Amino acid sequence: MSESPQNKKYIAFVLYPGLTPLDLVGPLQVLNARGPEYFATVVGETIEPMETDTPLRLMPQMTFDDLLDPAIIVVPGGGIPTYRAMANTKIRDWLVNAASTAEVVASVCTGALILAAAGLLEGRQATTHWAHWKTLERLGAHYNKKRWVEDGKFITAAGVSAGIDMALYLTGRMAGVEMAKGTQLALEYDPEMPFGRIEWDKVDRNALDAELQSILPQVWADRPDLLARVQQP
Amino acid sequence: MSESPQNKKYIAFVLYPGLTPLDLVGPLQVLNARGPEYFATVVGETIEPMETDTPLRLMPQMTFDDLLDPAIIVVPGGGIPTYRAMANTKIRDWLVNAASTAEVVASVCTGALILAAAGLLEGRQATTHWAHWKTLERLGAHYNKKRWVEDGKFITAAGVSAGIDMALYLTGRMAGVEMAKGTQLALEYDPEMPFGRIEWDKVDRNALDAELQSILPQVWADRPDLLARVQQP
Repeated sequence: MSESPQNKKYIAFVLYPGLTPLDLVGPLQVLNARGPEYFATVVGETIEPMETDTPLRLMPQMTFDDLLDPAIIVVPGGGIPTYRAMANTKIRDWLVNAASTAEVVASVCTGALILAAAGLLEGRQATTHWAHWKTLERLGAHYNKKRWVEDGKFITAAGVSAGIDMALYLTGRMAGVEMAKGTQLALEYDPEMPFGRIEWDKVDRNALDAELQSILPQVWADRPDLLARVQQP
Repeated sequence: MSESPQNKKYIAFVLYPGLTPLDLVGPLQVLNARGPEYFATVVGETIEPMETDTPLRLMPQMTFDDLLDPAIIVVPGGGIPTYRAMANTKIRDWLVNAASTAEVVASVCTGALILAAAGLLEGRQATTHWAHWKTLERLGAHYNKKRWVEDGKFITAAGVSAGIDMALYLTGRMAGVEMAKGTQLALEYDPEMPFGRIEWDKVDRNALDAELQSILPQVWADRPDLLARVQQP
C-alpha cells in the first residue's frame, strides 16, 4: 500500500459474494478519478476472489480489519446474495463502526437494505432498487422514488446503474462541478438508450415482493430477528 | 464448466491487464441477462486475477485456449494498457481466429483499437473513445462520432459507458425489444446526469494525441510494425 500515505482519505467500496458488479464498478470508475486527497479502495471479509451475479469474479484490495475509518463508504447491491449480506454480522459491525466516523455513507441499489438492516437508515429518507422498496420501508427507512436521495451523511441510489449518477453528484459535491464534468467526459457518460426511457407507469413495484417473502425464511434461517423485522403483515 | 452445455453459444468478454472495468462490466451486466441460448463468460490469457485502472482486480473464467469459437466477442478498452494489449500477439491471434466464425464482434471504448490493430476494422465504419479517434483512423477504420456503430458483424461503441447502450441495442437485436427493455428495467437504466449532457462543442478530440504519439515508441518498443502504422505525419 505504498500508494496510500496516511494523509489520504479512503473511499471504501464494500465487496461481498454474489453482488451485482455494475453496482460497484459504476461508482468506482467515477470516484477513482477523484483528486489526490481521496483514495479509492475495495474492502471485503477476505481478499480472496469473490463470485458475482455474472461469470466475473472480483478481488478486494484489503479486508475490513485493514480499514476501520474510511472517509467515504459505498455499499453495492444485488439480488438474494445481498439479503444474505444483510444477515452477515461481520459486515454489519464494520459498517456501524465505520459509518460513525465517515463523512459520507453511500449505497447503490439494494445496498441500501444492508445499511437499513444495520439500523443506519432508521427514520431516514432513502431509495433502493424499485422492486425492493417494501423491504427498505419495513426496515425503518422512508422510500423515495428518486434516482438518488441524500439525508445527512447518507446518500442512497436507486437500482444498479443509478450508482453512476449518484457518484457524479458526489464528485461534484466533493470536488466541484468542473471535476465531475471532466470525469463524465472521460467516461463518455452521455447516454443514448436504444429503446428510450423506462416507462414507470407500466412497472409494478410490488411484483417481486411475494416471492421475496417466501424465500426469506430460508435465506435468514439463522436470523429470526431480521426476519421478524421484514416479515410484517 | 458444468453450467455450459455444448448447445449454448458463448458471449466472450475479453479481459487483459489494466483495462477500464466499466467497459467490461457494463455490457456484461446487460448481456448476462440473455436468454438460455447464450452464455456469457470472461476470457483471458490466464485465469489469474488481473489489475485494472482502478483498485479492483478481475478474474477471467477461462483462457483463450479454452474457448476458440465464441458466438459473440466483446473487447473492452482502457488507457495505455489497451495500447499494450494491441501489441499482444496472443490476443491478436485469438481475436482474428475467433472473429472469423463469430456472429458478432463488439468493442467498447478503445477496445476498437485492439480490433483495428488486429486488422479487423480495415475500411470499416467504427467508433471509439473520443480522445482516440485518430489512432482508429490511422489503423484503417473510418471514425464515426456516434454512440455505437454497426458495420457487418462488427459493432463498436464509444467511450466506457457507451458499452451499456450498445449492449442493450445488441440485446434487442438478438432477443427482441421486450427482452432489452426488461433488462433495462432490471438495471434501472434511466439516467439522470446531475450536471447534464456532455457539451461536445467544447471538447477538443485531439487533446491527447500529441502525448500519445510521444509515449507510443516506448509502449511498442518491440513492435515497430505497429508503431509505423500509427505514427504517421
